[in-house]
Amino acid sequence: MASRQGRTDPRVVRSRERVLEAALAELAERGYGGFSIDGVATRAGVARSTIYRLGHDRLSLVAAAMETLNVQPRPEAGGQDPRADVVAIVAHLASAMQSSLMSDCLPAVLDGAERDPGLRELHHRYSAQRRTRLVEAIIRLQESGHVVGDPERAAEALAGAVFYRRLMTPEPLRTDEVEGLVATVLGER
Amino acid sequence: MASRQGRTDPRVVRSRERVLEAALAELAERGYGGFSIDGVATRAGVARSTIYRLGHDRLSLVAAAMETLNVQPRPEAGGQDPRADVVAIVAHLASAMQSSLMSDCLPAVLDGAERDPGLRELHHRYSAQRRTRLVEAIIRLQESGHVVGDPERAAEALAGAVFYRRLMTPEPLRTDEVEGLVATVLGER
Repeated sequence: MASRQGRTDPRVVRSRERVLEAALAELAERGYGGFSIDGVATRAGVARSTIYRLGHDRLSLVAAAMETLNVQPRPEAGGQDPRADVVAIVAHLASAMQSSLMSDCLPAVLDGAERDPGLRELHHRYSAQRRTRLVEAIIRLQESGHVVGDPERAAEALAGAVFYRRLMTPEPLRTDEVEGLVATVLGER
Repeated sequence: MASRQGRTDPRVVRSRERVLEAALAELAERGYGGFSIDGVATRAGVARSTIYRLGHDRLSLVAAAMETLNVQPRPEAGGQDPRADVVAIVAHLASAMQSSLMSDCLPAVLDGAERDPGLRELHHRYSAQRRTRLVEAIIRLQESGHVVGDPERAAEALAGAVFYRRLMTPEPLRTDEVEGLVATVLGER
């Protein structure tokens, strides 16, 4: 809803923010199957009609929540030390998987991706964007003379180990385990 | 329900099997959030009361379905060649993630594990059992003189890469990519 000046009404901006925050909390707590417009409206303290007026149905609200989770790894410091970049990217992911909204929402996102082709496409696209940074750092490491095997497989193994610990075990990968993981997967003996 | 001979009535055995098959299909298709006793009863072609008489509520039925998924990797041929054992275990997992009931149910299981502490404990226990075989093969490889880094991290990286490809990308790891993954993570240069 644009005001006469062509800018969005600040009340609309604020209610959009509240709705998205509530959608993330709902997704984390109830999962994709339990996610409902009613639940989000109650959490956000707005009427259902407010959510519809923002242009959302259930699915587009899940998608909008997923978009706000699509935080890219921090930019690296120029990449003079590609091995340090690899460790930083993996440590950043490990830290996110220990505690973050992204980690809290991950099982719901995986379940939603399984049920809806549109969410699946979003989820795969964001995962590919995050993975690219890691693959690029591994390729730079390779170019600097380090023999690393297949960079794509190494990136999947590094990121995969972090997700595995979050999803399949009671203990997410600790930051002090990242160095050992990187040394193992990069074949440093 | 035991008969007078102390054996379970074959009709009860058959209806238990049909209910469990239906529960797996329901879990795969609807997810943990959409899973219902009604849905399972309809799929199995039995009355709700039949499911209750088998001793199940919604949660115990999800748990029973998860138990039937807990298929261990095939026993290895004596372990004379620990590297071949590692490849066989990872290839077996990759093949399961390409197409299996376990793969179809995985997002629902991850979501259920996030919502219910009992399912989480089951899921983590079964994952640990499956991982043990891989860690043991990697340790045997290490004992045979192969320098492999940290066996626990290597196992998490290998299994993690397979789950990563299933959950985060459109293409599960192909069987012909397993050798490259193993060579990369085991640091063979």
